[in-house]
Amino acid sequence: MNTIAQDTSGQSIAFKRSASHFTDRITAGGEDGWPVEAGRYRLVVSRACPWANRALISRRLLGLEEAISLAVTDPIQDERSWRFTLDAGGRDPVLGIRFLSEAYEARETGYTGGVSVPAIVDIPAGKLVTNDFQRMTLDFATEWMSLHREGAPDLYPENLRGEIDKVMDAVYQDVNNGVYRAGFAKTQQTYDEVYRRLFARLDQLSERLSTRRYLVGDTITEADIRLFTTLVRFDAVYHGHFKCNRNKLSEDPVLWAYARDLFQTPGFGDTVDFDHIKRHYYQVHADINPTRIVPLGPDLSGWLTPHHREQLGGRPFGDGTAPGPVPAAEQVPAHGRAERA
Amino acid sequence: MNTIAQDTSGQSIAFKRSASHFTDRITAGGEDGWPVEAGRYRLVVSRACPWANRALISRRLLGLEEAISLAVTDPIQDERSWRFTLDAGGRDPVLGIRFLSEAYEARETGYTGGVSVPAIVDIPAGKLVTNDFQRMTLDFATEWMSLHREGAPDLYPENLRGEIDKVMDAVYQDVNNGVYRAGFAKTQQTYDEVYRRLFARLDQLSERLSTRRYLVGDTITEADIRLFTTLVRFDAVYHGHFKCNRNKLSEDPVLWAYARDLFQTPGFGDTVDFDHIKRHYYQVHADINPTRIVPLGPDLSGWLTPHHREQLGGRPFGDGTAPGPVPAAEQVPAHGRAERA
Repeated sequence: MNTIAQDTSGQSIAFKRSASHFTDRITAGGEDGWPVEAGRYRLVVSRACPWANRALISRRLLGLEEAISLAVTDPIQDERSWRFTLDAGGRDPVLGIRFLSEAYEARETGYTGGVSVPAIVDIPAGKLVTNDFQRMTLDFATEWMSLHREGAPDLYPENLRGEIDKVMDAVYQDVNNGVYRAGFAKTQQTYDEVYRRLFARLDQLSERLSTRRYLVGDTITEADIRLFTTLVRFDAVYHGHFKCNRNKLSEDPVLWAYARDLFQTPGFGDTVDFDHIKRHYYQVHADINPTRIVPLGPDLSGWLTPHHREQLGGRPFGDGTAPGPVPAAEQVPAHGRAERA
Repeated sequence: MNTIAQDTSGQSIAFKRSASHFTDRITAGGEDGWPVEAGRYRLVVSRACPWANRALISRRLLGLEEAISLAVTDPIQDERSWRFTLDAGGRDPVLGIRFLSEAYEARETGYTGGVSVPAIVDIPAGKLVTNDFQRMTLDFATEWMSLHREGAPDLYPENLRGEIDKVMDAVYQDVNNGVYRAGFAKTQQTYDEVYRRLFARLDQLSERLSTRRYLVGDTITEADIRLFTTLVRFDAVYHGHFKCNRNKLSEDPVLWAYARDLFQTPGFGDTVDFDHIKRHYYQVHADINPTRIVPLGPDLSGWLTPHHREQLGGRPFGDGTAPGPVPAAEQVPAHGRAERA
C-alpha cells in the first residue's frame, strides 16, 4: 500500500491511508470479469512495503510463483511513485512500463489517486486489476486453490475465519497501521495515544503467543502473515524512525521468538529485503528524516538464532508441507538479508 | 556545551563543536584573577546536556554543592539560547538574569558567539568566568580541594593522570562527540564512518570493563564520569534520534551493567533528568526531528535493576565515602527520574 501522499519533490507531505481504490476481485468463477488463470496476472510489489510483503509470503506459501509472475519495484519512489528502475532499461520486462502508474492510467484514464503496492496487473491488457491489499491475500488462499502447489497450507480455514478476522482487525488497527499512525503523527497527543495502543496490543499478543505457537489454531494462517510483516520491520524502521520505542521487538522474548520462528520458516524470511526496507522508510519520508541518512543498525544477525518455539507444538503447514526453495530470479540479494552482518 | 548553532526560528542549522571561548580558570592560587572562594560562583547547567552533566556529577561527588551554587536552565533553548524559564518570573534568583547570554554579554560586550553550558558565573559581577567544559571538572577535582567535603574522592589521581587522559581522549573523540557527529552528519559516508568508530570504541570499552569495575584504577575517576554522561543518554536519545542504533546500551551486558552501577551510585543517577534530556534533543533539533514529537520510550525502569558489578571488586570512592543526599532544592522532579515508569 502506498502510505504517503507525495509532492513533486518526492517528499511525503501527509499521512492518509485511503481505502483501496480498485477493488475488483480475481476469483475462481470470474464474477468481476477476472477469472483465476495461470500466467495472466502480474503481481507488483515493493519489498519495502509491509502490505505487499503479505502477498509475497502468501504467494510463496501457496506455491503460486509460476501462476502469478512477480515484478519488484525500486524501494525509492520518485514523483511518479513506484518505478521499475531495478530492471534492465528501467522497464518491467513483462509489462513494458517504467512506472506502476502507467497500469493505473491504463485502467482509468486521467487517474490522479494514489499509486500503491501490492498491485495485480492484467498482463494482456496492461491494466491494473486490483490494489486491494486487504482482500488480495484472502483471495490467493481461497480463490486460487486450483493453482496452489501440492501440499499448500490452508491459510484461511473456514472454521476459524471468525477468530482470524477478529485478530487481524485488532492487529491492523493497533499494530500494522498503528506504527504508521505513530510515525506520521502531527501532534504529541495523537502520537502518545497511538503509541500506548500499539504497545498495549503487542503486550496482549505476547501474552497470547506465550502458550501457543501461532495466533489462531495450531497452524500458520493469514493472521500470522499479517502480524509478521510488521514485526519483521519493527527494529529496523519502526522502533527509531516511527518512534515506536518503548522496547525493541528483540526485547520481548515471546514476540521475538515468534517472529524468528516465522522468519526461519520457508516463505517468510526469504521474502524480506532489509536493504529495501531501510532505504525506503529513511529516504522517502524526508519529512521525518530530512537528512535521508539510512542508519547502519540494527544488527540483524539475531534473526537467524534458535527460537525453540517447536516446544509449543503446532503444525506450521497443517496437513500440508513447506514450500520449496525460492525461484532463482526472485532471491533477495545478499546485502538485503539478515545474514549479511 | 552548546552543540548546535541556531537560526532565529530556534532550529539548529549546523553542527560545529567550537573550542570553548572563555577559558579562564578558577584556581586555588587565583592566577587568572578568579580564586577559589565559597559562595562566589554560580554553576549554570542544563540537565539535558552531557557536558554540563559532568559538572553536576563532579560537584556532587566532591561535595561542592554549598560552595558553588546551581542554576538549572530550561531544557529548550529559544533564539536567545539557554533560558531561566524554570525559575519564578523567568529569572535566575541569584543572578537576576533571564538568559545565560546576559552573563556572556557582561563578560564581553557585543559577544555574538555560542552560549554554552556548563558555565560558571561570578556572582558579584554577574560575569561569565568560564565555559571550558573540558577543564572545569578537572579544576573542581584539583583546585577546589580546600572546599571539598570530608571523604571526597580523588577523581583525578596524580599517578594515573596519563592513563585517564588517554582514555578520556579516546572516549571524547569516538563516544562523547561521536554520537553528535553521527546525529548531525550531512552525508551517508560521514555517518557511516563515525558510526563504525563509535561502536568499535564501545566494543573496546566493553571488553576493558568486563574484568574491571572502573575505567582506570579501582576507583571512580573523571574518566568514568565522562563515559557515563554519554551512556546514560544512549538509549533515550542517541540510539534513535542520532541513529546510533547497532544496538541499545541495554543490549551490551557489560556496558549496561557498568552504566547501571554508576547510575545507582550517589552523585550520578541523582543528577539525571530524562525528561529534560528527551525534550531537549527531540524538540531543539528540528532539522533532525521536524515534528518535534518526543518519543514516549524507552522504558527506563531497567536503570534500577541489580548490576552485580560489586563482584569485580573496586572501591568506588577509594579511601573516601559516598556523598550524602541531594539538597532538597536540587532534586530532579519525579517525572524526570528512571523510576517514573
